[in-house]
Amino acid sequence: MASAQVLYDFTAEPGNNELTVREGETVTITNQVSTRFPGFSKSGPELFLLCKQPPKGKEKITIYMGEVGPVWSYPEAQLDCVVADPKKGTKMYGLKSYIEYHVIPNTTNRPVNHRYKHFDWLYERLLDKFGSAIPIPSLPDKQVTGRFEEEFIKMRMERLQGWMTRMCRHPVVSNSDVFQLFLTYKDEKDWKTGKRKAEKDEDVGVMIFSSIEPEAPDLDPIEVEQKCDQFSRFTKAMDDGVKDLLTVGQEHWKRCTGPLPKEYQRIGKAFQNLSSVFTSSGYQGEATLTDAMTSAGKTYEEIAQMVAEQPRKDLHFLMENNNEYKGLLGCFPDTIGVHKAAIEKVKEGDRLVAASKITPQDKVTMAKRVSTMSYALQAEMNHFHSNRIYDYNRVMQLYLEEQVKFYETIAEKLKQAHSQFTTM
Amino acid sequence: MASAQVLYDFTAEPGNNELTVREGETVTITNQVSTRFPGFSKSGPELFLLCKQPPKGKEKITIYMGEVGPVWSYPEAQLDCVVADPKKGTKMYGLKSYIEYHVIPNTTNRPVNHRYKHFDWLYERLLDKFGSAIPIPSLPDKQVTGRFEEEFIKMRMERLQGWMTRMCRHPVVSNSDVFQLFLTYKDEKDWKTGKRKAEKDEDVGVMIFSSIEPEAPDLDPIEVEQKCDQFSRFTKAMDDGVKDLLTVGQEHWKRCTGPLPKEYQRIGKAFQNLSSVFTSSGYQGEATLTDAMTSAGKTYEEIAQMVAEQPRKDLHFLMENNNEYKGLLGCFPDTIGVHKAAIEKVKEGDRLVAASKITPQDKVTMAKRVSTMSYALQAEMNHFHSNRIYDYNRVMQLYLEEQVKFYETIAEKLKQAHSQFTTM
Repeated sequence: MASAQVLYDFTAEPGNNELTVREGETVTITNQVSTRFPGFSKSGPELFLLCKQPPKGKEKITIYMGEVGPVWSYPEAQLDCVVADPKKGTKMYGLKSYIEYHVIPNTTNRPVNHRYKHFDWLYERLLDKFGSAIPIPSLPDKQVTGRFEEEFIKMRMERLQGWMTRMCRHPVVSNSDVFQLFLTYKDEKDWKTGKRKAEKDEDVGVMIFSSIEPEAPDLDPIEVEQKCDQFSRFTKAMDDGVKDLLTVGQEHWKRCTGPLPKEYQRIGKAFQNLSSVFTSSGYQGEATLTDAMTSAGKTYEEIAQMVAEQPRKDLHFLMENNNEYKGLLGCFPDTIGVHKAAIEKVKEGDRLVAASKITPQDKVTMAKRVSTMSYALQAEMNHFHSNRIYDYNRVMQLYLEEQVKFYETIAEKLKQAHSQFTTM
Repeated sequence: MASAQVLYDFTAEPGNNELTVREGETVTITNQVSTRFPGFSKSGPELFLLCKQPPKGKEKITIYMGEVGPVWSYPEAQLDCVVADPKKGTKMYGLKSYIEYHVIPNTTNRPVNHRYKHFDWLYERLLDKFGSAIPIPSLPDKQVTGRFEEEFIKMRMERLQGWMTRMCRHPVVSNSDVFQLFLTYKDEKDWKTGKRKAEKDEDVGVMIFSSIEPEAPDLDPIEVEQKCDQFSRFTKAMDDGVKDLLTVGQEHWKRCTGPLPKEYQRIGKAFQNLSSVFTSSGYQGEATLTDAMTSAGKTYEEIAQMVAEQPRKDLHFLMENNNEYKGLLGCFPDTIGVHKAAIEKVKEGDRLVAASKITPQDKVTMAKRVSTMSYALQAEMNHFHSNRIYDYNRVMQLYLEEQVKFYETIAEKLKQAHSQFTTM
């Protein structure tokens, strides 16, 4: 139980240096972003805004106008995968041990092996490549001690599964070469070759926007800024709401696994204790009452255990979902920050033209490109919203379903206990 | 709620000087008992054991041999009464106020008026007259401050009702002149006359045993001592069990009316808060989720209120019942103490005869009379046991019934909340 509480310590702020952009703040993006986007370190969004000729990457990313606004192009069949069968492996003649997982995509149904550090490598590649347009949530924390404990392995696998599911669901991420490599490499050689190629990919950082092709008219810079501010406000508010729920949930978890079952247990013991005193009365016709009281006492001990075990059956998933969203929302300030920096750059347009730093044509190009960036952000927000609606519906259903079962079971047990008493 | 917690502070030891007799302890009864039995102050049980000629009281108390052993003679119709309609009265031109209750016996169906101090007067009379044979439980505490508050009046009335019901149920007490006077006095004059007569009653203290006539053969002194010890052990053990349950119940009460509903409320608020953030997303097709989440949040707020109100519906009666038994059990050491003192006196018999303090005939009489006392104790214990079995069956049924309703209602509410979520 102690370990569960450690695993659930969601309230601490993550150690990474998040860049929080508040409404109306101007952000000099270069240095701060560089810590998260290595491919982006040489410059801010101007690298894309002012590049002479966008490189012709073979992965073209289309944005359509859907019912809800700009949307990514979704594949017909949803990619999915299962993370399973954690196995302890060793190398260097048993000197080093690690846990290896099977990852089985629904496309090939063929398991590939991956260690945590491979997931971490994938995360770094996805962050490099898509991070300025798409929030790539962090992997579950690296942990040094206790990483071979069954409980920890189970929890990490569950979280890696959650992370992979989310990445599979993303039409842009799941379609990328590096992600496909991770899921479907044929052999060690294939993997090594693919790895090297992915690490040399230069189409990273803000240059991802050069692959994006919105099938929609260019947006007005004012509209771009309004959209950006709206998303910024929303993600900030949701981040607060999610953290609040996590805090409350964690306290509830502690109560449900600590003092509350202890109290039910004491009630149960008090009934049983009284029952055994009654048994010693020497009075005839005592048995019905004492049997019933012992049974009621045992029922409360059972309830105590149910109460203590329940959070793993329902609150756990509510917490995991919100923890995932906390991670995801923690990436948005960076993603939004890139857009804010681009908007600022476009606002400077006239001044830059006057100072002959850019040509009037450059200014037009910048406006067009910031419009592309805005479409990307909108497509991403719409992707986020539709997933969010699905995820929260699903997790709330699961939570309430388990809660209903829990209370119904308690009522049923108490009904049984009740039936044993008789007023003669 | 604060006042409820004060009312429920059962765990403190009562202020009166209870005489606790442990197994194997010899008790010099005279001084200690005198504080509780004023009519008994002049001497211990020897007043009865050695009296020349038991006074011919007109109230004869018979003990029969029933299935369970010695039993009091029970009336065909069970006396009962209702304590109701608390009204504020004044005297001395409004300078003094008091609360007056209607007491309506099922025999006459005619209400008589009584103030708390009348109940207290009755208690003192019953204690004087029956206290050495029958444990007379204390009245609910006298309280000086806040005694006109509605909550307090309701609680006191409930407890006076409980006390009266218990007295009505006792075949010896309910049949006594003083108890009948209290329930059925015709007018103020009748009451005053009866009062004076009761206060002059000399047939009090241990002399009650002279009215008792067991229709059974005399008991062996060893058997008398064994019975006495058995009851002593039982009442001590039950006293511990009852106090334990009261302590646990009080803690549970505090949790249910304090931190637990606060937590459910916070969960409810967190859901509603997240719902209102979602509403601000600007995304289409959000309404089903946000409505469902608001509704789930409100459900948890309702649950919070249910949790806080529940103890008054079930735990309250469990606590009241055990509190009554705690009071009753607190009287047993005195009652048992009288028997222990009598047994010691009989044991001294040979020595007293040798020292010519009593005659050999006195010794025989003493043995016969301690046998009568033992029958009275056994009849009283059997009365206690049969009432206890009834009371605990009844209160446990009530408690569990309300608990079942409580959990069923929560399950039903959550089911409703659950039905509003949809995974599209």
